Amino acid sequence: MTIRPAELIERKRDGGELSAGEVSELILAYARDEVPDYQMAAWCMAAYFKGLSAAETFALTDAMIRSGETLDLGAALGRKVVDKHSTGGVGDKTSIAVGPIVAACGVPLGKMSGRGLGHTGGTLDKLESIPGFRVELTTEEMIAQLREVGMAIVGQSADLVPADKKLYALRDVTATVDVMPLIASSIMSKKLAAGADAIVLDVKVGDGAFMKTLDDARALAAQMLDLGHRAGKQVVCLLTDMDQPLGRAVGNALEIREAVDTLRGVGPGDFGELVLDACARLLAFSDLGIDLAEGRRRAEQALSDGSALAVYERWIRAQGGDPDLSALPEAPVRMPVRAPRDGVVAGVRALAVGIAALELGAGRRTKADPIDHAVGVVCFAKRGDTVLAGDDLAEVHARDESAAGKAVSAVLAAYELVDEAPPARGIVLDVVE
Amino acid sequence: MTIRPAELIERKRDGGELSAGEVSELILAYARDEVPDYQMAAWCMAAYFKGLSAAETFALTDAMIRSGETLDLGAALGRKVVDKHSTGGVGDKTSIAVGPIVAACGVPLGKMSGRGLGHTGGTLDKLESIPGFRVELTTEEMIAQLREVGMAIVGQSADLVPADKKLYALRDVTATVDVMPLIASSIMSKKLAAGADAIVLDVKVGDGAFMKTLDDARALAAQMLDLGHRAGKQVVCLLTDMDQPLGRAVGNALEIREAVDTLRGVGPGDFGELVLDACARLLAFSDLGIDLAEGRRRAEQALSDGSALAVYERWIRAQGGDPDLSALPEAPVRMPVRAPRDGVVAGVRALAVGIAALELGAGRRTKADPIDHAVGVVCFAKRGDTVLAGDDLAEVHARDESAAGKAVSAVLAAYELVDEAPPARGIVLDVVE
Repeated sequence: MTIRPAELIERKRDGGELSAGEVSELILAYARDEVPDYQMAAWCMAAYFKGLSAAETFALTDAMIRSGETLDLGAALGRKVVDKHSTGGVGDKTSIAVGPIVAACGVPLGKMSGRGLGHTGGTLDKLESIPGFRVELTTEEMIAQLREVGMAIVGQSADLVPADKKLYALRDVTATVDVMPLIASSIMSKKLAAGADAIVLDVKVGDGAFMKTLDDARALAAQMLDLGHRAGKQVVCLLTDMDQPLGRAVGNALEIREAVDTLRGVGPGDFGELVLDACARLLAFSDLGIDLAEGRRRAEQALSDGSALAVYERWIRAQGGDPDLSALPEAPVRMPVRAPRDGVVAGVRALAVGIAALELGAGRRTKADPIDHAVGVVCFAKRGDTVLAGDDLAEVHARDESAAGKAVSAVLAAYELVDEAPPARGIVLDVVE
Repeated sequence: MTIRPAELIERKRDGGELSAGEVSELILAYARDEVPDYQMAAWCMAAYFKGLSAAETFALTDAMIRSGETLDLGAALGRKVVDKHSTGGVGDKTSIAVGPIVAACGVPLGKMSGRGLGHTGGTLDKLESIPGFRVELTTEEMIAQLREVGMAIVGQSADLVPADKKLYALRDVTATVDVMPLIASSIMSKKLAAGADAIVLDVKVGDGAFMKTLDDARALAAQMLDLGHRAGKQVVCLLTDMDQPLGRAVGNALEIREAVDTLRGVGPGDFGELVLDACARLLAFSDLGIDLAEGRRRAEQALSDGSALAVYERWIRAQGGDPDLSALPEAPVRMPVRAPRDGVVAGVRALAVGIAALELGAGRRTKADPIDHAVGVVCFAKRGDTVLAGDDLAEVHARDESAAGKAVSAVLAAYELVDEAPPARGIVLDVVE
């Protein structure tokens, strides 16, 4: 080791910049257990206060990628492969609807996904509410499935970016998760190592998201875009609303139902809008040689002609699951959340709904917690909807009456009812490209 | 453990304050290896940026003390025991002259001291240049010696403040040494655990000191004073000049000679002034019931009547050493540093002289390095002295000609010669009490 970690910590602490070689050696030596956790923790905390330059962030990302194996799905398929990633929110089942649509349009989508923690759900957990569904595929199985079905969503391989896994676990217990270049680097190292050629990033903004303000989301988007471009990839960031839950359903099996409803053309409007927007972007990036408008047209076509739903069913079966919605678990208790007055919904606080679902058992507080795939919340009324006193604002799906009662109170408190309709707002707040 | 360390790190990172109980549990759990180094490192880096309140600093100090055993020298002797501590500098042999003087005046001085690192020397290293001198005494031996001789300077016991030892080692490799409340807490926890009733703190200020500015030194002094007062001790801080080396001699055996010269009344003026000032403060704190002026008079008396020198010799013999200066090691090569021009000395940069002595072998770069007790630098000309071209500014004591030549160049570069005499300045720049 030619670096002296204590010097690199001091330089970062004092606001200086590390060379690409220094960052690279620091991360790779850390991955090899040659730099101890305590020095890495001090360096991350210094980075919290002093930031990282674009060059440092890229060197960090590149070193994370080089810490493990990488995939090149495009080379394996002889096709351009696209990927889609969300920074995480409440009710976000976007990939589960997007994948079948783009695959039905002839574009392979290969995605590694994660599990939920705290109030944010994880795509793998949602998929595992489908009886029999396997998230652990070998690389060979994943490639074969991409060839045969056109899509695959699998768990993150332990061989990819091990440095990120190690560093994230350290950041999680040292109050250094909330460092934007480290977030950007963690997301992008996984996306780049997984080998997609073009990536649509959905950066959630608002109450239920990691990024609370549009400014923060734009800054994160700019950093991720820069990392993607430096790696020679096509990237676009959609900044999307997470002040209220996405769609209606929050909870694993409930969200699978909503994704399938959307593939059948009967899903909620905001969610459908985001799905079509993401599909159009992915198709415009693909090797089909079409533009955004044509991408959107083909995505709509795949929904209306049933081809997307057909791909969904083939995909679920390919990974061992039963695509029939009647196979999904159902919670024994359902309890309505009723409007206490007439009014217009000014907001449905996503964080509060996410925590209510977490308390019902839909999520995990710590990585080791088990989850209940059946429970959750369905928000019928969303921002801008007019309701009368006694109308069902939402419905809680719970294990028992006691849990349901608590969740009803929590969800009711998440609703803000006013007299005047709030200004209308689309789901996509901004695009950074 | 009722605390959640990650929450305490986050609160400190966000500028919040921990309760005394939280700080206490954090430190004691860390000392018991129940809080890992990486969380403590992140917390220290957060404290670097956000500071600690006076209450947090006291809770930290108190927990450090409770992490191990404590001494109560006063109770053991049935007398008020005084202590003196320096924050470290170049040529600082003050305790070695101060101890015998106050003991000769009938006031017991019991001190635990440390070793040098980098450009600053350590009292234990200086004492070990005396053939046979033992720094490791048991508590019983230390108390017996305080009764019989009136003074003892010993190594820090491993049983005292183990949390400080552990935390300091961590700070040393995570760029978190330079955090003022952690410095104040580290110093004061050791002083308070060692059980003196009254403490004179010599806070060095300037080029060769840890505190570079008078403002920083005042801030550190105020924090240490506060910690001492909260613990019910008498404390005073002398802020003293470390822009140039203290006295003339820099290097272990050379400094012992200078301390003894001072006890004989023939030492350098600035050093003698500091020694008398510190002695007067210690005697005024003592159970003799005298004021500062009388303290100074008695200290001068102990020098002029030879009683201080007699205590020195008894003390050195009590700890196994040979007090005869001819027993001290001498370097084989001496080389003069000559003035290149006529002029007045505007400054002798202490850091440069300290590093020259370090390079000669008088100090250690890392804790494991051996040191050469014989080598060092003697600065004959100090700030304000008029010299003629060719006069000896200083003398280098070295192992060989090559090392001597390099040190001569380095020491010469430390001297600034000008035409106009700089304004006169006493050794004690300020007193915080």
